[in-house]
Formats: sequence, structure tokens, C-alpha cells
Amino acid sequence: MGYEIDYYNIKIDFEKNEFLVLDQKLLPFEERYIKLETVQDVYDVIKNMNVRGAPLIGIVALIGLYLGSYTDMEFLKKARPTAINIFNYFNELKVYLEKRADHHKDYKELVRSFIIDILKSEYTKNLKISQNGFEILKKIVNKERINFLTHCNTGSLATIGLGTALGIIKYTSSEVLRSGGKVFVWVDETRPYLQGSRLTAWELHKEGIEFKIITDNSAAYVMSKGLVDVVCVGADRIAKNGDTANKIGTLNLAILCKYYGIPFIVAAPNSSIDTNLSDLRDFEVEERQKDEVIKIGDIPITRQDYEVFNPSFDITPCELIDYIVLDSGVYSKPYNF
Amino acid sequence: MGYEIDYYNIKIDFEKNEFLVLDQKLLPFEERYIKLETVQDVYDVIKNMNVRGAPLIGIVALIGLYLGSYTDMEFLKKARPTAINIFNYFNELKVYLEKRADHHKDYKELVRSFIIDILKSEYTKNLKISQNGFEILKKIVNKERINFLTHCNTGSLATIGLGTALGIIKYTSSEVLRSGGKVFVWVDETRPYLQGSRLTAWELHKEGIEFKIITDNSAAYVMSKGLVDVVCVGADRIAKNGDTANKIGTLNLAILCKYYGIPFIVAAPNSSIDTNLSDLRDFEVEERQKDEVIKIGDIPITRQDYEVFNPSFDITPCELIDYIVLDSGVYSKPYNF
Repeated sequence: MGYEIDYYNIKIDFEKNEFLVLDQKLLPFEERYIKLETVQDVYDVIKNMNVRGAPLIGIVALIGLYLGSYTDMEFLKKARPTAINIFNYFNELKVYLEKRADHHKDYKELVRSFIIDILKSEYTKNLKISQNGFEILKKIVNKERINFLTHCNTGSLATIGLGTALGIIKYTSSEVLRSGGKVFVWVDETRPYLQGSRLTAWELHKEGIEFKIITDNSAAYVMSKGLVDVVCVGADRIAKNGDTANKIGTLNLAILCKYYGIPFIVAAPNSSIDTNLSDLRDFEVEERQKDEVIKIGDIPITRQDYEVFNPSFDITPCELIDYIVLDSGVYSKPYNF
Repeated sequence: MGYEIDYYNIKIDFEKNEFLVLDQKLLPFEERYIKLETVQDVYDVIKNMNVRGAPLIGIVALIGLYLGSYTDMEFLKKARPTAINIFNYFNELKVYLEKRADHHKDYKELVRSFIIDILKSEYTKNLKISQNGFEILKKIVNKERINFLTHCNTGSLATIGLGTALGIIKYTSSEVLRSGGKVFVWVDETRPYLQGSRLTAWELHKEGIEFKIITDNSAAYVMSKGLVDVVCVGADRIAKNGDTANKIGTLNLAILCKYYGIPFIVAAPNSSIDTNLSDLRDFEVEERQKDEVIKIGDIPITRQDYEVFNPSFDITPCELIDYIVLDSGVYSKPYNF
């Protein structure tokens, strides 16, 4: 269609004033785009979780400021008060506008170029991560067919461009294909929210990369059969010493990898590193609502009155991580960011 | 009600000719018993999976022979051709009847006393396992509050009486309660079939034992926080060397226990030991239908055309098992059954 910006999760044409976001709640069953025409539309897609992934949410919020006005900031922040990227991008935009206050460009033009800058920078970061990951894989997995295992969704749906851990897998796939190689992916379904079986499966299917969905329970079994060469996962937060917070189940995989001697790789943008934290030993893990475990969609799978513990992520200690792949390069133990 | 035999999963009164089985498909939402009045009723509850657990299925099949006649054997075997207990119990009944051919008891009386013998023997086995498990726990976990983690359902729903791994947990709970102690249980939901969040949660709730359901993904996290003292699981098959086949996800837990130094206990009746198998290294793992992973009940959670790998169980190598608790006693490494 020739959008100025054209990714799976977002399509933008400033000339035609067209802004489309993929309704991720309908995946993998239906690919329907939602048109953003007003600030209220933007508020709604953020609030109702039609869009997900930290950078995407931030960028969509910026589109809200483009469609509306600078004064809509407070309104848009309320759509998801925990989305740190909204706050960060809004602050960056403030500085950007102040610096250019004496330019003869109008508000809309400046917001537009700010959005395009961010999109470019996000895209480039993910490409770098993917390339860096491929470089280290070439050294550690010397096979025609590389069997990956991944968790959650860290691809084009969650980011801008290729993605982080899934970006490495997709980039590797296209690189090894040229030399007659092949990539295969075990996709952890990733309970409770099933980002693996719903979103990662959708992306891999779309890309034509061979995969099989497994329950999270089955990871040890496929490893025990020698069917996994490398595990690649993302990161929400990385401490100075390399301790990593990521989707619940990541720690599990790291321990299995240690037992079987399988390389365990964490991939993330440099911005995930929090140099204020020396380690994550006492990092507080958010507990999410029990409904995610007790129901699938609106359907109860067990009784509402049963007690549930639903931690949103876990902490993988640095000693279990073989490589941390950032946009700035590949790091190994001992980490010191 | 005064049934001659009165368990959660089966209630029998030969005097009143009443035979009730709990419809396990409705758990944990509804506790409804199905009346067995004809051979066809028996065939149906086995075929439609209203009853589950190897001994229970075998006993229900025997009730079919009681309600009908000896010649219904072939018909009943067809209800679930893979249920080995049906075949075993039928063969044992044959021998039992032949031995007593010159007695003056009639067919019904003999089948009745055979069923009662089996129920008693199953009940006693499970009680022994539970007691043996408690004995070893007293030695290895010296705490007022014992935090268990368990997988799948190995309790009164799957067996006759207390159960195996869950039997140990329930027996321990009632023993430590007397001395002011307490038992808490982390219940793995056990994807894909959710026996944990549906059945084990139901049993523990019924017994008044405190528990929380977690996704299988969260096991490593609760262990990392020091919240698990011991892991108890069941076994489908145990080889001479102690290698154990059990519900998918068991191997996972065994590896996590090794990493965190948490005792890992397998509990099963002696009949689970297969002395024909020296180990389970090359044991073939049955692959179950993909619908279990792709759907919850009838509701699709991802696309039907995506590839799935759904192994029904995994193999835990003997070196990861600290204790094997049988009705005959408690065993530790090196195993030699």
C-alpha cells in the first residue's frame, strides 16, 4: 500500500493522515487493523490492550499527541499509567520541542519528525541486536539446522522492526537459508497469557519459519532428547551485574540450559539496562491478577475461589546467562554494565 | 449415607445394588455422581472419560461384569483399549473364579468379593505409600510449616484411598496438624490437561489444606524464593534402575530441585515398577492429540493449523530422584528394583 512506515504492528502515512495499528487481541485468528483518527481512538487502543510492547505503546501515544495537541499528554498517560515508555517519550518530546522552539516549523511537523526519528532508532536497535546475535551464534552453534527454543513474544509485534530474541531467530533464519541451512523453533506457549502460542507462532508462520508449539512443561523433555541447540529470550530489565528480569518461566529455561549444557542467550536493547541496580536479588516482582490463570478469555478453567499466585516475571541470576546481546554488542560473564 | 465403599470417586452399596461414580469431567465446578445400572452405563463412563485413574477404571469395569455377566468382558475392554488395569483385573478375576469353581457361591457373590478384595488392597497400598512418605519427610524436612510442590493429580480422584504423592501430602498434613504444624501446597496447573488446577486443587480444597495454584512456569520462581521444601510427584512407570516415566513436566521439576537442592520424591505403588526394563533411556513417549494444547475444552486458544508437539509424559533419570516411595518402603540411590 506504500505506507511511509509499514510494519506488522503499525502502519503510518503522514501525507494521507492514516494511522493503523494491528489489533493484537484478535491474533492469531484475525488480522484486523484499527484506524486511529482521534486522541480518544489512541486512548482506547492503549487502554484496551489492542496494542502491546513498550516501544509500540509509547509511539502510539505520540500519535495521540500528533492527532490531538500537546495538552492531551495527561489524558493519554492515564490510558496505561505503568507504561514507562509513554512517560519517557513524552519527556523526550518536551526537550525536543523546547530545543526547536525558535525554528519556523509548526507543532505537527515537529511531532511528526520526532516520531519518525524514534521509529528509525528503534528499528536500527533491533536490527543491531539481531545481527549481533547472529554473529555469536555462528561461533557457538555450528550446524546446518539450528533448533531454537524461545519464550513469550519478542518479535515484530512487541517492537519496531525485527524484534530482540525473535529478531535474532528470524535474522539467523534468513542468513542460514542462503547457505542451505535451516532454522527450527520450539515455541513455549507461555502461560498464563499464551504470548508464545498466539503471537510468536503467528509471526513465525507469517515468516515461513518452521516451528512447533509446546507447553512450557515440555521444554525439559525436548532438551533431554537433544532437540534444542540454543535458547533465546528477551529481557524487561537487566542489572549492572547481568541479573535479568523477564517473563515468568525464563528462570526455568535458564536452569534447564545449565543442566543440559545448552547456550542461554538474553537479547534486549541497551535501554533495558538499569545501571541504578547493582543486581536484581531483591527486585520486587509484580503479581498479576488471578484471572489470567483461572480463566482463558472469559471461560473459567477452574474455580474462582481457589487461591492463585501469578508472578508476572522472574529473575534469572547472571551466572545462568551465557551471553547478553545488546544493540551495542555481545557480552559474556562476568557482566559489568 | 452408609455406603459399603465410600470414597470421593466411587460409592458402592452391594446390598442396595447402588453404584455411583463421580463425574470427574465436571470438576471442580460441580460434584455430580453418575449411577451405574447397566453394562452400557459402565461402558459409557469409561469411554467418555467421566472416570480416570488406572485402578478406578479397572474397578469400574469389574462393576460392569457384576451388573452384567462374565461374557461382557470383550465389550468392556473396547471402552478404553489402552487401560491396562481392565485387562489385568479381568485376568485376575478369571483365575479367582476358576480357583473357586467348586465353591457353592454364585457368580455375583464371587465378583463382589473379588471387587472388595481389590478395593481393600488398593486402599492399603495407598495408605502404606502415604505413611512411608511421611516417615522419610520427618527425617529430611524438619519444619513446623512444610511447603510442598506437586504436579498433576495423584490423590483420591486418581486412586482408591489417599493417593500416592498427594496421599503423602494429605497424610503429612493430618499428622503435623496434631503437633501444631502445617502443610502448604504449591499446585502446578499441569498443562495441557490442567489436572493440577482442576483436580488437585479440588481435593486440597475439600480437605481444607492450604494451597495456591501456579502456572507450571512459576515453579522455578517459587523455588528461587525459598518457598518450596520438597517436591512430591507420582509415577506411571519405574524401571529397575529407578528411571521414572510420569506426566510431562516432571523432569522439569526434578532438574529445578537439583539446582536448588530441594528433595525430589517419586511416590507410586510397587506395581508401577517394570522389572523388564533396566532403564527408560529409550522408552517411547506417547504423543497426544494437538487439540489439548490448541484448545481449552472446545475453545481454540490458537490457530488449528499451527504445528504442536504434545508428549504425554517425560522420563526423569534416576540420578535426579532423591527418594522413591513405594508401598513396600522408601528407597534411595542407587536404585535396584
